[in-house]
Amino acid sequence: MADQDAQPPVGTAPSALPVLRWDEPPEGPVLVLLDQTRLPAEEAELVCADVPALVEAIRTLAVRGAPLLGIAGAYGVALAAVRGQDVGVAAGLLEQARPTAVNLGYGVRRAAGAYREAVEKGADPGLAAAETLAEARALHREDAVASGRMARFGLALLDELLPDGGHQLLTHCNTGALVSGGEGTAFAVALGAHRAGRLRRLWVDETRPLLQGARLTAYEAARNGMPYSLLTDNAAGSLFAAGEVDAVLIGADRIAADGSVANKVGSYPLAVLAKYHHVPFIVVAPTTTVDLDTVDGASITVEQRPGREVTEVTFPQVGVAGRERGGVPVAPLGTQAYNPAFDITPPELVTAIVTEEGVISPVTGVGLAELCARSSQITIS
Amino acid sequence: MADQDAQPPVGTAPSALPVLRWDEPPEGPVLVLLDQTRLPAEEAELVCADVPALVEAIRTLAVRGAPLLGIAGAYGVALAAVRGQDVGVAAGLLEQARPTAVNLGYGVRRAAGAYREAVEKGADPGLAAAETLAEARALHREDAVASGRMARFGLALLDELLPDGGHQLLTHCNTGALVSGGEGTAFAVALGAHRAGRLRRLWVDETRPLLQGARLTAYEAARNGMPYSLLTDNAAGSLFAAGEVDAVLIGADRIAADGSVANKVGSYPLAVLAKYHHVPFIVVAPTTTVDLDTVDGASITVEQRPGREVTEVTFPQVGVAGRERGGVPVAPLGTQAYNPAFDITPPELVTAIVTEEGVISPVTGVGLAELCARSSQITIS
Repeated sequence: MADQDAQPPVGTAPSALPVLRWDEPPEGPVLVLLDQTRLPAEEAELVCADVPALVEAIRTLAVRGAPLLGIAGAYGVALAAVRGQDVGVAAGLLEQARPTAVNLGYGVRRAAGAYREAVEKGADPGLAAAETLAEARALHREDAVASGRMARFGLALLDELLPDGGHQLLTHCNTGALVSGGEGTAFAVALGAHRAGRLRRLWVDETRPLLQGARLTAYEAARNGMPYSLLTDNAAGSLFAAGEVDAVLIGADRIAADGSVANKVGSYPLAVLAKYHHVPFIVVAPTTTVDLDTVDGASITVEQRPGREVTEVTFPQVGVAGRERGGVPVAPLGTQAYNPAFDITPPELVTAIVTEEGVISPVTGVGLAELCARSSQITIS
Repeated sequence: MADQDAQPPVGTAPSALPVLRWDEPPEGPVLVLLDQTRLPAEEAELVCADVPALVEAIRTLAVRGAPLLGIAGAYGVALAAVRGQDVGVAAGLLEQARPTAVNLGYGVRRAAGAYREAVEKGADPGLAAAETLAEARALHREDAVASGRMARFGLALLDELLPDGGHQLLTHCNTGALVSGGEGTAFAVALGAHRAGRLRRLWVDETRPLLQGARLTAYEAARNGMPYSLLTDNAAGSLFAAGEVDAVLIGADRIAADGSVANKVGSYPLAVLAKYHHVPFIVVAPTTTVDLDTVDGASITVEQRPGREVTEVTFPQVGVAGRERGGVPVAPLGTQAYNPAFDITPPELVTAIVTEEGVISPVTGVGLAELCARSSQITIS
């Protein structure tokens, strides 16, 4: 329905650049990121030679997405270790770079733990650094594996919930290869449906204020040759009312012990719309996103971001309106803005949580705890 | 809560330029519009010397908002009549410029009716044109009066629904002086609450894709010295969940005979959120917005606008990125977009409809028909 401005899709060739890679040029080891603030206008690399540079890249969202933040955090600790910097200080800086995604702290603590353990076992700094880097690489690999498992579990769930196939799936923000060591979380499920010939349409919320849907999910959908349409976040309601959404698939930045889900702002209104229209609302996230130490949704710290993300519009193209990286004002000067980066969806609005260990439905604290116990036996033993 | 980037508000002096005015310079009569696509960056006038120019201004949203479209349509017919052009052809062009707002057709038909009546009574073309212009001016005045009455009825309703005062009101799109012969519809109610000392905060949805909230409502709120905060449409859910919204106030572009309300896309999701959180959802519109010939919501034609409004972001500043009036792409080239300009809220989600003739609550077809009968006795007798 209603696809205006139809043009041939862009090429589906994969990006020449990995989302994140460790490199060791002669001048010393670095973490090289695909700068996501420049997508889809250009694929540019951002080289982080130290932890402050990586912290800045995390804050400005050059690297973003819960699972990838965990991986980046782990490599950041390794970078400090390999460069002989204070690992404890580096871990502290990284962990505080953004407050909501639990994966960041998980990755940081896991790499820092590997370093500490090596030191405690008498390893010299070089060996301890190597152990830390190995741990970051292990997390990176595990995340890729988890991604594949989530895609399989998620697709099986869709087949169960929507036996007629021809899915019209709606997604919010960006949850694909750009946020993961693999093919992502929610997006990986949609991609799996596409490959299985069961995706009729991926509805892509543009996801204001930073337009990760328009810039990144559309980019990934186009590259994978998926049938997709972009919409303003406002237009999702019309699709639900018209019966054009069979399921909502989103990721998560933190899942509390009671099953409350923190995700990109705009997720909660989708959950309410889905409930009102009896449409499944499915959260796809690795168990590393579950934080059993956070008891409920009210206990999740929601990052408040600068108002200028709302009062201005920022572009992937550098140099628009002569601005190096800033935005173009759309609201009157002096306008105040309310700009939470995330919102909280309570478990009663979540049909299922899909993890690499299996699916929880209905969503209960007991189910979550059992799944995480199973996961920790496998991945952190 | 959470007002980042607090700066002093801009000056509250009224604009030097009226939203719409009839002028008669030596080279012939013209309709002069405040170009709303340039706000808030600059207050610029757009001079329409003929009906095609006015149709273009309506299509590009230089002039917009249901009541103002009615006034502009009536003046457009007068312009054709005064310039000796074919009034029937002009009326047809104007009426088709945008399909959803019923007021446009109402204003056009009313002015064309005045012209036809004058001709039938034997008036010469000059006198018939003068009668047509007089009818447009009468509609303009009536709309200003209706605006004041809606504000009073709306404020009384708020006082009844929210007896504790200190209202936190959420609004969508733009419904103030920029859409009206007076101070507007929903915005006029919020302004009334502000003047009565009962407005704690006006939450302004930015209203993608064209950002009428960020550009126009923020501009009007700032000029009137109101306490307001801008938010992405996505963030409204967080405010509801936090109990920070006491009522939603919106306008309407067409109200069907059953009480279904067509309004700016994003209104329906707000209605669902309001219902879920037991918050009043109030529609403010003159009786000219009610279309008893449209039986229900499904019968309302929803305008589908170009996908580039979503795949690009357009600025009030002319010349951004070297583009004269176009937008800056944010999505990958070739991205298709679903871009309905409006959505439909069914009557069961509307707490009340406030008109210049009184308040309907609960919203029923019978109540609407009675109100419109009363209105037509007064204004079109």
